Amino acid sequence: MKKVEEKLKFTAVVIVLSDKGSKGERKDLSGPLAKELLEQNGYIVRKGILLPDEPELLKSELIRLTDEEKVDLIITSGGTGFSLRDNTPEATLAIADRNAPGIAEAIRAKSLEITGHAMLSRGVSVIRKQTLIINLPGSPKAVKESLEYILKYIDHGLKVLKGSAFDCADEEKK
Amino acid sequence: MKKVEEKLKFTAVVIVLSDKGSKGERKDLSGPLAKELLEQNGYIVRKGILLPDEPELLKSELIRLTDEEKVDLIITSGGTGFSLRDNTPEATLAIADRNAPGIAEAIRAKSLEITGHAMLSRGVSVIRKQTLIINLPGSPKAVKESLEYILKYIDHGLKVLKGSAFDCADEEKK
Amino acid sequence: MKKVEEKLKFTAVVIVLSDKGSKGERKDLSGPLAKELLEQNGYIVRKGILLPDEPELLKSELIRLTDEEKVDLIITSGGTGFSLRDNTPEATLAIADRNAPGIAEAIRAKSLEITGHAMLSRGVSVIRKQTLIINLPGSPKAVKESLEYILKYIDHGLKVLKGSAFDCADEEKK
Repeated sequence: MKKVEEKLKFTAVVIVLSDKGSKGERKDLSGPLAKELLEQNGYIVRKGILLPDEPELLKSELIRLTDEEKVDLIITSGGTGFSLRDNTPEATLAIADRNAPGIAEAIRAKSLEITGHAMLSRGVSVIRKQTLIINLPGSPKAVKESLEYILKYIDHGLKVLKGSAFDCADEEKK
Repeated sequence: MKKVEEKLKFTAVVIVLSDKGSKGERKDLSGPLAKELLEQNGYIVRKGILLPDEPELLKSELIRLTDEEKVDLIITSGGTGFSLRDNTPEATLAIADRNAPGIAEAIRAKSLEITGHAMLSRGVSVIRKQTLIINLPGSPKAVKESLEYILKYIDHGLKVLKGSAFDCADEEKK
Repeated sequence: MKKVEEKLKFTAVVIVLSDKGSKGERKDLSGPLAKELLEQNGYIVRKGILLPDEPELLKSELIRLTDEEKVDLIITSGGTGFSLRDNTPEATLAIADRNAPGIAEAIRAKSLEITGHAMLSRGVSVIRKQTLIINLPGSPKAVKESLEYILKYIDHGLKVLKGSAFDCADEEKK
């Protein structure tokens, strides 16, 4: 496994899923907000993508970003609710190699402290190859709360995934 | 998607899974209790059904209630434990279109505050077509605690699922 | 179902997944610690097994221990992180009959109270036949915290699984 520099910044892409947003019928606030928060935390945000709630489009995009562009972190926003058009978790699981359920659980548990409606979010967090993919809800408020909570912890996960850090058992030996 | 009235009440069915209950060897207290709590929260409870712990029977019943009767909410009670006869989550997942894991997680997290034994509940929460299906444990105590906690939040999920409410991102624009 | 004595002790096996540990390049501290904690809680620990992070080896071992040795509880430690070699949850799910997600959720929720890094653990908890299998992280610290938390509760689950206790709905009738 290639050993990358400890200080190398991680790359990220934000994908917003919204039928209205992709048709220009609604201004997307969540995408720019996620980009800003990622950059504040040291990520190089390669781009923001606005897609309609079409699972096949999302699957193609996720495969391309992971396998070809080799992005380290993909944050999706939207499509995690109960509408029949909400299929972001299904598209994400369909292209996943491994599930990382603790991130999605932690996001919901944190949000539950604020509102019980957080239990309705169906987001998942998975790994494909060396890319971590995390679904966030569509609202800017949820994007902000979630990212501010998780970004300080997932950095270690990305380091292990990219081979630049050893696992916890090793670290405790130091 | 048909737009239903904001004030239209949702329909619900309670299914109790119990080998003993279905043979009349044990009086079912959980079913009537769930019915009462649902009605207090404005649901029209169409019926209560008592089934043995037979996953094939449960699957048929869930498919019929969702696809033909078009019930909005199905609450199951029982069959979520560790006995070899406990197969309610497996039957529920087998007929699900989409997973809604946050509800099951929230129920367990809330119950964990009361007793660590809550970690043994294997219940799931899923969506099939326009029906939300939630597994609760078999004990009347767990049914009461769980429903009193979740009913005030899942109402919004059902509105989105039935097309009578927009998603959170929309609502924040108002 | 064979009714076993209420006081019969449960059997357990500890499997440590570690490429370095299995090659003797790192001293395994988690395995002996898990054994000690299990014995303090009344389990008969049949053996400790040290495996490299090879999912096929783990699957074979889990199948043999459940189907042939009929061990009641298998605790794994390691292979739950983000490294490409971490495949313990995938191997465990591949041989599972039924998922018992509440235990893995509870372990992560408890660890989250100590450190946000707990969200990176991908461990699962499942049932195969009459054996409960629980994935723990690799670090001795996580093994200690997790086992001290869950062991007092899973005892009831094992009793139900082995047929020596009735489910909760029955117990409340007493």
